[in-house]
Amino acid sequence: MLVLITYDVNTETNAGKTRLRKVAKQCTNYGRRVQNSVFECIVDNAQCVELKAILSDIIDKNLDSLRFYYLGNNYQTKIEHIGIERGISADQVLFL
Amino acid sequence: MLVLITYDVNTETNAGKTRLRKVAKQCTNYGRRVQNSVFECIVDNAQCVELKAILSDIIDKNLDSLRFYYLGNNYQTKIEHIGIERGISADQVLFL
Repeated sequence: MLVLITYDVNTETNAGKTRLRKVAKQCTNYGRRVQNSVFECIVDNAQCVELKAILSDIIDKNLDSLRFYYLGNNYQTKIEHIGIERGISADQVLFL
Repeated sequence: MLVLITYDVNTETNAGKTRLRKVAKQCTNYGRRVQNSVFECIVDNAQCVELKAILSDIIDKNLDSLRFYYLGNNYQTKIEHIGIERGISADQVLFL
């Protein structure tokens, strides 16, 4: 299933930048970074629980906000984009 | 239905900050700002088309990224949050 993860952190501080970097690193193990603090991850239920626990440990709960949106398996028709794009599709195969 | 709108803009420039402010103003007519550049909007199909056209006119398509995620009507069970919260539920009634 696709889980959209959005992360709000104050990146004016170095500690905030470090937390964002760590969140990005974990999320990109499961998908792609589509915006600076928006990640589309393809996970099963077990991976989702694991990822949530990891991210929960990284963030500062008194300063940061982390939101999870569950878009299910038929997510292709549920997403639209305008403007510049970054990254590749979360389930896109790369032929090198 | 709930439409999640995520907006990536470089807010290091004043022009970027102005565009983010304009996007936020339009989105909060239909819902709430849950993170700095993440908005949850409750719209019907006609409102959704209208809002997309308005936002498309505001952003700089060569610099900014705007994404729409359609979470349908039964969205309450599709969202989870960790950390600080901002705003109120998009469909929450305020008793003053």
